[in-house]
Amino acid sequence: MGSVDHPTRRRADAVANRDALLAAARALFAARGLDVSYDDISRSAGVGRATLYRHFPTREHLHDALLDGIVGQIEAAADALPDEPASFAELFRAALRVQTDNLAFYDLFPARGELGDAVLRRRARIVGAFREPLARAQDARIVRAGLTPEDVRIQLLMLSAVVRPDVAEADRRRAWALARLALGIEDEPARG
Amino acid sequence: MGSVDHPTRRRADAVANRDALLAAARALFAARGLDVSYDDISRSAGVGRATLYRHFPTREHLHDALLDGIVGQIEAAADALPDEPASFAELFRAALRVQTDNLAFYDLFPARGELGDAVLRRRARIVGAFREPLARAQDARIVRAGLTPEDVRIQLLMLSAVVRPDVAEADRRRAWALARLALGIEDEPARG
Repeated sequence: MGSVDHPTRRRADAVANRDALLAAARALFAARGLDVSYDDISRSAGVGRATLYRHFPTREHLHDALLDGIVGQIEAAADALPDEPASFAELFRAALRVQTDNLAFYDLFPARGELGDAVLRRRARIVGAFREPLARAQDARIVRAGLTPEDVRIQLLMLSAVVRPDVAEADRRRAWALARLALGIEDEPARG
Repeated sequence: MGSVDHPTRRRADAVANRDALLAAARALFAARGLDVSYDDISRSAGVGRATLYRHFPTREHLHDALLDGIVGQIEAAADALPDEPASFAELFRAALRVQTDNLAFYDLFPARGELGDAVLRRRARIVGAFREPLARAQDARIVRAGLTPEDVRIQLLMLSAVVRPDVAEADRRRAWALARLALGIEDEPARG
């Protein structure tokens, strides 16, 4: 009984519950779309409905947490890459993979309307993840001069229009080639 | 009475009614979103509901006609331009203006799911509009070598992600600059 009430254990349980709920929501959204019920999510996570509501009082809280997790994947990719000029192109490719892996969540992104604080915070995090890798690539002149981290964010936003289930693989390749040309990065080593 | 039943007059009336209905639908969709009622559209066009249903039996017919009209604007821009190398970049800018002018119809475009014949037909028309202008620009080497009309369509699709009411003007400029770099076209004359 003592251990159940121990604050550290309680905190660890809360983190585990939150992770289980997010994993369940991610899987159910991907499989069945975004209107899966809170009942189904809590059941699938093996966690009570009250716990789900405590962690995510509204769907907006749940969506925000999932979107924060996606941005976290880009930040994790940035952290895992070495401090080398080539890491910029590698991070851009990683961000594209994160987009592709999260196709099912496309609809979660606010398509229009007011820009919430959460959206601006995620944008700033994406820009932040690219800042140093881009600066290193620019010092080494293996990326277009004058490119800014905001440009990179906008190029990713443009690519989100083709990283969608209804866009053919050939068209995604075209889009990726156009993005490379815009950023001035190469897939193969440059030829003299 | 005779003139009312004259086939040419009847056809002219039908075309005028159809144009009035499309103009009314365009204005109402832009002002109030896509769930405007058929009653409101026919009233605003000054045309009977039966006539609206005869021209556009379902909302899909109406949306298709509006989208065909948007593609028609790009084709009209292509037709109006002289057979000169510079017309490619001009046509691309015109297509972007068409996108911007039709922001309100963004939601009409099928976001995902099956590709209807109408969608494929519109794609082919966009590609067709760019084919000759692109070939002329390539002959004059004022566009990236190897660029295809399909690439141009994909770049326009990517730009549709930023030609939206919720994207800041500064970000649209960034996107346009990236697109220019990808296509290899210039806004200002090239410097030696």
